[in-house]
Amino acid sequence: MAALSVSPLAPASQPVLPKIRGVRLAGMAIGLKKNGGRDLMLAELAPGTTIAGALTRSLCPSAPIEWCRHALKGGKARAIIVNSGNSNAFTGNAGDITVAETVKSAMALIGCKAEEVFIASTGVIGQPLPPDAIAKALPRIAKNLKFSGWKDAAEAIRTTDTFAKSVTRTVTIGDTRVTINGIAKGSGMIAPDLATMLAFLFTDAAIPADVLQKIVSRAVKRSFNSITVDSDTSTSDTVLFAATGMAQNKTIEHLNDKQLKPFRRAVESAMVELAQLIVRDGEGASKFITIKVRGAASGGAARRVGLAIANSPLVKTAIAGEDANWGRIVMAVGKAGERADRDRLGISIGGVPITLNGQIVENYDETPVAKHMTGSDIDIEVDLDIGKGKATVWTCDLTHGYIDINGSYRS
Amino acid sequence: MAALSVSPLAPASQPVLPKIRGVRLAGMAIGLKKNGGRDLMLAELAPGTTIAGALTRSLCPSAPIEWCRHALKGGKARAIIVNSGNSNAFTGNAGDITVAETVKSAMALIGCKAEEVFIASTGVIGQPLPPDAIAKALPRIAKNLKFSGWKDAAEAIRTTDTFAKSVTRTVTIGDTRVTINGIAKGSGMIAPDLATMLAFLFTDAAIPADVLQKIVSRAVKRSFNSITVDSDTSTSDTVLFAATGMAQNKTIEHLNDKQLKPFRRAVESAMVELAQLIVRDGEGASKFITIKVRGAASGGAARRVGLAIANSPLVKTAIAGEDANWGRIVMAVGKAGERADRDRLGISIGGVPITLNGQIVENYDETPVAKHMTGSDIDIEVDLDIGKGKATVWTCDLTHGYIDINGSYRS
Repeated sequence: MAALSVSPLAPASQPVLPKIRGVRLAGMAIGLKKNGGRDLMLAELAPGTTIAGALTRSLCPSAPIEWCRHALKGGKARAIIVNSGNSNAFTGNAGDITVAETVKSAMALIGCKAEEVFIASTGVIGQPLPPDAIAKALPRIAKNLKFSGWKDAAEAIRTTDTFAKSVTRTVTIGDTRVTINGIAKGSGMIAPDLATMLAFLFTDAAIPADVLQKIVSRAVKRSFNSITVDSDTSTSDTVLFAATGMAQNKTIEHLNDKQLKPFRRAVESAMVELAQLIVRDGEGASKFITIKVRGAASGGAARRVGLAIANSPLVKTAIAGEDANWGRIVMAVGKAGERADRDRLGISIGGVPITLNGQIVENYDETPVAKHMTGSDIDIEVDLDIGKGKATVWTCDLTHGYIDINGSYRS
Repeated sequence: MAALSVSPLAPASQPVLPKIRGVRLAGMAIGLKKNGGRDLMLAELAPGTTIAGALTRSLCPSAPIEWCRHALKGGKARAIIVNSGNSNAFTGNAGDITVAETVKSAMALIGCKAEEVFIASTGVIGQPLPPDAIAKALPRIAKNLKFSGWKDAAEAIRTTDTFAKSVTRTVTIGDTRVTINGIAKGSGMIAPDLATMLAFLFTDAAIPADVLQKIVSRAVKRSFNSITVDSDTSTSDTVLFAATGMAQNKTIEHLNDKQLKPFRRAVESAMVELAQLIVRDGEGASKFITIKVRGAASGGAARRVGLAIANSPLVKTAIAGEDANWGRIVMAVGKAGERADRDRLGISIGGVPITLNGQIVENYDETPVAKHMTGSDIDIEVDLDIGKGKATVWTCDLTHGYIDINGSYRS
């Protein structure tokens, strides 16, 4: 299949990421991608780096996912190794051996424990990944490690994303200025099987692993777990956040430490931006859709209602057709399985109220809504009016492009 | 929008339904459908008829659904009134008044209690249905009631289904021959909002309402709740089964009465056939897909795994593209949320084993599978190999036709 042109929803430019003390990165080509592009990323982390993460809920996860689930218990990291071009998923015992060989090679190279090495793989599934494919490449890629290697790293984790994805934030903890950088891939047509989502974030802040894990778990819920392209969950989805501690900020012991607030907000905002970039590279996407739900029984209920709307093929195709078909939003609210009251439901599109108290508003004029639907950013607001729960989710429309990409990939 | 041509998956012919003692039907046009077609169905049922049903789980249901939920508690029926062209959903208090007026008119006409009148509506949502639109038409349609009115009835409940759907079975209870007839609509592009599914079944058997309800609940699970076109749930989905008792078979007191077995099997088989007809009229469908799951932890788990595969846009687009992309089936099994073991999973397509024990089979030859994918009936088998639960679900592929139908309906 020919390379896709860059998504029409891609941001005009991407930030140049600043250096982070304690993080060196490299990207290179080792022949896993058929097109000869960069397909291996190595991030080397300073001694003492803590790590936290979130992994796919798939019950048929890849070999690297199973390894990361084990290694995350230690909360320490010295290396993150990511390859594209082969997901090492559904490869049985051979997949586990490849992971073990990769870990062994990294231990020798860096001089660290096995559980300080993290691995993620994305690409074709069910194809064996030779046990030494990555292991033997590590000494070579290590020679290219640079504090400024962010762009190479972001390129190496791409499969067929139409643009590389990166974000940066600076913020203070107490008096100390710290940086957060993040790179991600996903939701562009991932060759050839799965829309795997990977995100790696790094900071020079000093944060204990247990606090870092709580920060990640909460931020992931409001970012990567609040986006959807097609409701399909990959065998390999991975978010990792490494904190080198080299900023030497005041030690933080508790999640609720007031001095941690700006940092927590910055992490969430960085993850939301990465998540939105993934949606903006959604397969065949022509519209970026924001769905705000309020008045739900709880925050979780609001998110599930939002995702029911975001995952509805009927809603997504209507938006692709620039049709303000609010009846389909009613349908999606009804099927979400969360408490709702037909006679209280309010729906707005593009800021224009369409229904109120379970009925279409009197003298509803579709003109401004129809105009909003022709834009590339679509805003939907739903008020269940039964509680205080709220959530925002993001998705894209369902177009002929999605069918083309996914229906004829191997033809 | 121009009328669609008949689905390529439609059966070559439809049965002519025999008469059922105690059931007279009629269909006529009362101006709810813009094209002037038949849009009102009346079924008059003999005194003593028992009824059971299954209604949408949507939490924003239509006014008729709320009425049927109440009326079903009585277990008795004298009339079923169905209109197409307006779903009377999301119409607030006005919708309830229309239902009340319709019920009142039917009570006067037939001489029955309110709770013996059942109503279903399908079509546009959020548009008021005038309170007397159906009420005042009932005396007129009643003049056309006929024991042979099946075809008129099946036509009147269609919206934009590309073909009318009907099935029939004859079977014995003890020594008595009884007939089961069923009609259904759905999943063809339902104008203009929802893919509502309606099915009405009738028999001359004498079955107490509580036993009938148990028969319906079980059969619905294996039929209408085992199909999916696009994972969206309508505000109006309705299944009703009326038993007139005029065959005067031996009284059945218990679900597990051995003499009821052939009848139960026939009901399930009739519902499965109607459900399959709905899938065969799926929006834009070009392939009819049967997914058999075995070896699951339970029957429910097997059905949920089957539906996860059937609802996956990645699986459905691959099949539309005639691509034997089994990796997407692994992904869907993983995301189903049911217990699975990566290293035990077996997948076959068209009877050809592709994976065994969590790995691709040695020397896998895709040729026969690729050939199977070019046919119109696609068979997928998944063996989780961890338990005895099994289930079969049916779906169709996701094509450009679906996007056309749902993305540009109002343009």
